[in-house]
Formats: sequence, C-alpha cells, structure tokens
Amino acid sequence: MGFSTDNPKGFVLALLSSGFIGASFIIKKKGLRRAAAASGIRAGVGGYSYLLEPLWWAGMITMIVGEVANFIAYAFAPAVLVTPLGALSIIVSAVLAHFILKEKLHSLGILGCVMCIAGSVVIVIHAPQEKEISSVQEIWKLAMQTAFLLYVASVIVLVLVLIFHFAPRFGHTNVLIYTGICSLMGSLSVMSVKALGTSLKLTFEGMNQLIYPETWFFMLVVLTCVITQMNYLNKALDTFNTAIVSPIYYVMFTTLTILASVIMFKDWDGQSMASIISEICGFIVVLSGTILLHVTKDYDRNSSRICFKHNAGMHASLSPNLTARLCSGNGELPKDVDEETGSSEDICLRRQELY
Amino acid sequence: MGFSTDNPKGFVLALLSSGFIGASFIIKKKGLRRAAAASGIRAGVGGYSYLLEPLWWAGMITMIVGEVANFIAYAFAPAVLVTPLGALSIIVSAVLAHFILKEKLHSLGILGCVMCIAGSVVIVIHAPQEKEISSVQEIWKLAMQTAFLLYVASVIVLVLVLIFHFAPRFGHTNVLIYTGICSLMGSLSVMSVKALGTSLKLTFEGMNQLIYPETWFFMLVVLTCVITQMNYLNKALDTFNTAIVSPIYYVMFTTLTILASVIMFKDWDGQSMASIISEICGFIVVLSGTILLHVTKDYDRNSSRICFKHNAGMHASLSPNLTARLCSGNGELPKDVDEETGSSEDICLRRQELY
Repeated sequence: MGFSTDNPKGFVLALLSSGFIGASFIIKKKGLRRAAAASGIRAGVGGYSYLLEPLWWAGMITMIVGEVANFIAYAFAPAVLVTPLGALSIIVSAVLAHFILKEKLHSLGILGCVMCIAGSVVIVIHAPQEKEISSVQEIWKLAMQTAFLLYVASVIVLVLVLIFHFAPRFGHTNVLIYTGICSLMGSLSVMSVKALGTSLKLTFEGMNQLIYPETWFFMLVVLTCVITQMNYLNKALDTFNTAIVSPIYYVMFTTLTILASVIMFKDWDGQSMASIISEICGFIVVLSGTILLHVTKDYDRNSSRICFKHNAGMHASLSPNLTARLCSGNGELPKDVDEETGSSEDICLRRQELY
Repeated sequence: MGFSTDNPKGFVLALLSSGFIGASFIIKKKGLRRAAAASGIRAGVGGYSYLLEPLWWAGMITMIVGEVANFIAYAFAPAVLVTPLGALSIIVSAVLAHFILKEKLHSLGILGCVMCIAGSVVIVIHAPQEKEISSVQEIWKLAMQTAFLLYVASVIVLVLVLIFHFAPRFGHTNVLIYTGICSLMGSLSVMSVKALGTSLKLTFEGMNQLIYPETWFFMLVVLTCVITQMNYLNKALDTFNTAIVSPIYYVMFTTLTILASVIMFKDWDGQSMASIISEICGFIVVLSGTILLHVTKDYDRNSSRICFKHNAGMHASLSPNLTARLCSGNGELPKDVDEETGSSEDICLRRQELY
C-alpha cells in the first residue's frame, strides 16, 4: 500500500457535498413557500402542491447530488477528513438562509460558523493521506485486524445491551440510549460505506470487485447498519426534542466514526504527534462550532428557522441517509407540525435525515 | 542569531502567569466577601476593611506574581505565543469561580473554555522558536527595519488622527475610537516590553545592557505607550459598557500585537505555510472562545459575576498593567458601583486592568 494523490479529490468532493446539501435545504424551502403561496394550501395541512413546484424538485436533486458526492468522497479520502467537513453544510445553509430566506443569523451563530471553518482548515492541513487500496480483499484484511475486530465486537455488545437492557427501561427518559445506538451503528455504517465506495471506485476503474463475496458482504453490512440507525434515530426524535438530540448525536457519531477509522485504516500511522494533536483540536473546534450553531438557534426562537436549520446541520454527512431521504413519504403522520412552513414533508425529512 | 531553547520557559511562564492572574481574582473576591461579612461595611459604601483582610492581600500578591511572570515570559518566547495564551486566565478564573465561589458557569461558557484550550494547543504546537538575542542593539536593529518603522509610523499617524480628529467628534458614540487608540498603542507597548524584558534578562545573565541608551529609550517608550493606553481605556470604560468594550479591545489588541511581532521579530520566517495557517486558525479559535465566554455572561445576568469575570478576562496579558494596578487607589470615584460586591476597589481595578 503506497500513498495516492486522492486526498485532494476527496476533499473537493466533501466540500461540494456540503455545498450541495446546504443549498438543497434552501432551495426546497423556497419551493415549499412558493407552492404554498400559489395554491393557498400548505403541505402541513395535506397539500401536495409542492410536488408540482420545479424548485422543490431542484432542491431534491441538489440534495441527492450532494449525498452522492459525500458517498464518493469516502472512497477517495480518509473518514478522518471527510466526516468533520460535513459540518460545513450547516454553514452553507445558515449563510444562504440569512441572505436568501432573510432568516437572520444569531451573532453567536456567526461565531459558530467561524469556528467550524477554522477547525476544518486545521483538520485539512493535518489530515493523513488516504492509503492506496487495490482490491476489496485488502479492505477485508484491514477489517480483520484484531484491533478493529475488537472494536466491532465492543460496538455490537454495547448496542445489544443498549437495545435489550437499557432501551426498554430508560429509553424514554435518557436521551443517550437511542442516540448511543445510532452513533455506535453509525460508525460501522461509515466504515462499510467506505469499503463499498472503494470497491465501486475500483470497479469503475476497471478492476471488477463485484466478483468477490467481500463486496456483497460490505453491502449487507451497510444495509443492516443503516436500517438500525434509521429505526433508533426515529425513536430518539419521536421521544426527545430535536434541539437536544441533534448536537449529542452529531458529537457521538463523528467521534466514534473517527475512532473506527483510526483503528481500521490506521489513519494516524506515520503521522507526527503534532499533526495528530492538531487534528484532534481541529475536530474539537468543529464540534464546538456545530454545538454553538445549534444551541443559539433557540435563543432567537423562530420555529421555522429552528426546524429548518436542524435539518441542514444534522444530515451528518453520511451517504446512506440518501436511502432514508428517498424513502421518506412513508405515510407516517408527523407528531409535531412546523408552525410557519407547516410542511409535513419538511418534518418527515427532519426525522429521516438526522441519522 | 541562532535558535534558543527558551520557548518552553516562556510557555511555562505564560501558563503560570495565566494561572496566577486567573486565581488572583477569586482570592481577592473571597477576601472582599470575608471582609464585608466581618465588618458589615462593604468597600463600595466607603469601607476599607478589606485592607485588613489577609486574603485580599494574598490575591493582590498573586496578581503581581502573575504579571511579573507575564512580563518575563515575553523575554523568553515570541509574542505570537505569549499574547494569545493570556486568554487562559479567563478559563482559570471562570473554572475557579464555578467551584470556589459557586458562580455557575453558563454552558456556552464551558464551550468557550474548551475552544480557548483547543486553540491554545494548536498555537503552542505551531509557535515559532524565539530567536536568540545577545544585546539590546540587536533588538534596536530589528526595530529599525523599514517594515517595522512603517508599522510604527502608521500606528502613530492613526493614533494621532483618532485622538485629534475622531475622538472629539465620535468618541462618545463610536466604541471603536477609544478602543482603537488603546489597541494600537498596546501593540507598541508589548513590543517595547519585550525589548525591555530581553534587555533586563541579558543584564541578569551578566551582560549589562543598562549602559546602552537603547535600553533607556525602550523604557521611555513603554511608559509613554502604557500611559496613553491607560488614559484612553479609562475613557472607553467610562463611556461604554464593559461588556462591549472588553471583547472588541481584546480582539484588536491581540491581533495588532501579533501583527507587530510578526513584522518586527519576523516570527514567521522559516515557518511552513501549514504552520502559519494553523497558528492563525488557532488564534481565531482562541478569540472566538474569548468572545463566547464574554458574551454568554450576559445571558445569565448576575451583576457581580459579570463585573468580576470581565476583570479576569481582560487583564489582556500585558505586563505593564502591573503599574496601573499598583497605582489604582487614585482617588477617582467610580461612576458605577457594583451592586452585589459593592466594591469600589473592584471597580477601580476593572477600570485600570483592562488596558
């Protein structure tokens, strides 16, 4: 395994992904507003006029493009680089909301944006190089390392204990149970997404990986993890306030993903202590900025803005949420209807997008 | 000029300084409280019983030790390293206030602390080495570089324009006028403090620098700059709310000081682009953390805590404020009396310490 020059590609893809995902929320929101204005019936009270609104579809497509870019980014750069950059989509949507939707950003929110950017720059400067991988079997070997197997085993045991022991008893009173399950599964999701993405990348480069059972195994893992994640994220969001679930979930998910990546892909091997510490600090700064952006939204309460920005912030830069987004419209009635936009579509998305 | 191994000494001194200064506010506050409880008369209503309270004196001594450590730190490490670390004293006093004075820290304040630490770590990791200097004439040569002379000239012109043109017209309506004068003069103060500190350090090491007129010239510059700074800081604090003045002053002062240091001492020469960018990001993070700590104090208003923390935060890690502190008790009556502690001593300090 040598070093490839893929990092810049992965970096640009991650940036593009954040840009697209951040912008998609604004475009969809504008579409919803326009549809409501045109028909007089809002989505929240049963209208589906937004389906006739090209702007809404443009937003949907923007989001899919963003998610695909995010998925591909994982095939080109280490998760240690791609995952924290997902926080930039919050900035994109916050800034666009400020200028396009005229939703005034709290001044501490601006500080949060500045921090996310400063932290991201530090992470990018010190990010490890993506190691060149030439077949899915090589990834398989990485996944079969004792250290990573131990990590996977601990995650599975923890998740099972949480699901069967803690969830029935404290699931409805302690926010850490459901979000913990989501975050633990999320770290495995990203690892398997990265494995699958790399296999597909190699396949497109002419080295067919679909002939190996490992590729199909990784696909199975992606599906299992994503479904578990979705299920418990919905439970968490049904039980607790999004404003509480979102930052906790984001911090745990990102931290565990980086931990998993460092164990499996040995991202930090060959890096100087100074680089590793800088990365960790950059990561802490991005997390703090994200928390700040989320928390300060509540200070200047405007229900539409809050709901909206939670969506934007918490897409969590994990490709599989694409599946969830495409399969929204699941007929489930939203418990809370957003007062201003009054859009069930919006809320449904909020539920689904968060994992 | 080679590289010395003085950086760690300067770093430890800067940390100690922040620790002492941060702690001194708590000790003095405890002393004031105890004195008020013992005598029944508070300092704010004319009592001087705190002068009989050993705890108050312990606090005063702690502060002087901290300021001296700060002054010496500048002789051992670049201002680019020492100045931003001053922000850590805010954390020390915020944390101590939380545990010892039971003044609950706002949760966003904790986030601010985390950011200050993360940013400081990044700065420390990437800080340039202090260049070895063997005589005051070498510093003189650095000060006589065209680039630095241009900086000094621009500062003087700007300050004069601000003092004679803008201050009489907009001084009372625009907070940037007085704080601008303080910050501009402050950057020259730190440079001359560093020159003087280095000269004294060399003198103590056996190379007497007092025989050179340059040493005395730097002493003159220190005095001039510090007096101007004090004067306009008092005006700023008399005119505007401390909560507004403090963060603006801190950001401008620290930024200009780093700019001056980079120009005069060529701190960034021989550093990689990655290090310089990391330093700048770390610096931005520390500034953001400081702003966050200051702003969030107002969310959970408690007059004593606010007054108190402003003191702690804004000592601005500049050695010459020692002079100001020692010469407080200048008979000037404070305009605003802190409601809870009711201590004129406290307020007097607040006024003086900020420059």
